[in-house]
Amino acid sequence: MERSVFFISDGTAITAEVVGHSVMSQFPVATVTHTLPFVESEARARAVREQINALAKQTGVRPVVFYSIVSPAVRQIIEQSEGFCQDVVQALVAPLEQELGMAPDPVAHRTHGLTATNLNRYDARIAAIDYTLAHDDGISLRNLDQAQIILLGVSRCGKTPTSLYLAMQYGIRAANYPFIADDMDDLRLPAALKPYHDKLFGLTISPERLAAIRDERLNDSRYASLRQCRLEINEVETLFRKNKINFLNSTNHSVEEIAAKIMDVLGVSRRMY
Amino acid sequence: MERSVFFISDGTAITAEVVGHSVMSQFPVATVTHTLPFVESEARARAVREQINALAKQTGVRPVVFYSIVSPAVRQIIEQSEGFCQDVVQALVAPLEQELGMAPDPVAHRTHGLTATNLNRYDARIAAIDYTLAHDDGISLRNLDQAQIILLGVSRCGKTPTSLYLAMQYGIRAANYPFIADDMDDLRLPAALKPYHDKLFGLTISPERLAAIRDERLNDSRYASLRQCRLEINEVETLFRKNKINFLNSTNHSVEEIAAKIMDVLGVSRRMY
Repeated sequence: MERSVFFISDGTAITAEVVGHSVMSQFPVATVTHTLPFVESEARARAVREQINALAKQTGVRPVVFYSIVSPAVRQIIEQSEGFCQDVVQALVAPLEQELGMAPDPVAHRTHGLTATNLNRYDARIAAIDYTLAHDDGISLRNLDQAQIILLGVSRCGKTPTSLYLAMQYGIRAANYPFIADDMDDLRLPAALKPYHDKLFGLTISPERLAAIRDERLNDSRYASLRQCRLEINEVETLFRKNKINFLNSTNHSVEEIAAKIMDVLGVSRRMY
Repeated sequence: MERSVFFISDGTAITAEVVGHSVMSQFPVATVTHTLPFVESEARARAVREQINALAKQTGVRPVVFYSIVSPAVRQIIEQSEGFCQDVVQALVAPLEQELGMAPDPVAHRTHGLTATNLNRYDARIAAIDYTLAHDDGISLRNLDQAQIILLGVSRCGKTPTSLYLAMQYGIRAANYPFIADDMDDLRLPAALKPYHDKLFGLTISPERLAAIRDERLNDSRYASLRQCRLEINEVETLFRKNKINFLNSTNHSVEEIAAKIMDVLGVSRRMY
């Protein structure tokens, strides 16, 4: 039977989701999840408590509740529910209090909120998203000196999601450049990219997976044929090797893993938002 | 003095980052952070331990280390460092073991990795990103029946980052539609959007902040003038009210907060990736 799991917070509930998801993934158990953000008032907390209790009654098993709430009064209402309640942050705050020699000073929305002190950083993040969209798929090769990362690869190998993820999560200006079928006869690194060798990173993918992805888009086309996919991947990997460009096979990796690997290999520092 | 903080993991280190960042944000202390993903081998763990110890020696204060590593041998090497080490997941796993009545079965990369069982969901996420890019800024009003959320607002009020965040983090197909200056004389909800009232959500922003953002893009233009920004915001908010469209002022909110609020108000369920 699936276990009900709640992620509850007075903010976005992202922390509760990430921690709770990570903890639950340690166990071989199927879950049904409910995320409840912005539980800031006692009235909403009471409604949430009713929801938890109703589900406990209905399923006969108490739901697991991962929560993070600053207000003691609101928090207490959730803790009084019939769920199995786990504060996702508190367990780590207590030991740190001693280590840092200072009392915690919790403020709601500090983790994923916008404040005067992080507004400049936030603007930089939005600028990175703008930059990345303007340099997606080789649309523009101007201002590549401003890129922190330039991804290379064939069509539909994962360049766009990876670039956008880097910009969105880490405020990184990530351009990307596609190698297209017409280039394959005589594949070379474009002259415009050569000055930026230390920012270049290649993505590759298994021909079978690429063919499946392309077939979704253009059914039964030459573009999606396994033969064409094999040829392109082969040419591009040869180019990466010849030009000593780091590359990664994205086939079995999520966009999170690909992004983390690229930042790690290129030594680009990660900024949290 | 700034405190050094490490986020270390055998995977992407996203969980360690999110938890550690959340815990540190409870304290009024400045930090310098280092994220070290893919610490999978004992050799790399030993190098990381040296890095921590060197920093401890150099600063005279032990760094705070948030970590999550499955392999006991690798984990032990980090725990033997001179950092103040906190396992970000373990503290919550033990109590849950009892509650679930089963032993944890930890597997590296399960949290943010790609497996046969989540590949379909992953494809849906990439499809959502494709959809969102194809329906950014009113580029296409086709297939709006497939949208889960349609954002409305004036140019540069935050529609694009919010749509992309919804697609990237939650696999939501989010279209967005811009009201432009030429429409302002007689602002109406486009007929193409009317059938989708329950998916519509408006974004608004303070005229001062909008003018500052636009000025970055087009310095000293009519487009960026405070007068023009005031007029557009005023017209659009009137339209939202008249058409009973939920809306949010994005001025003081991060994209995480805006996205969480929209999903909450529209009742769109959140899927974790």
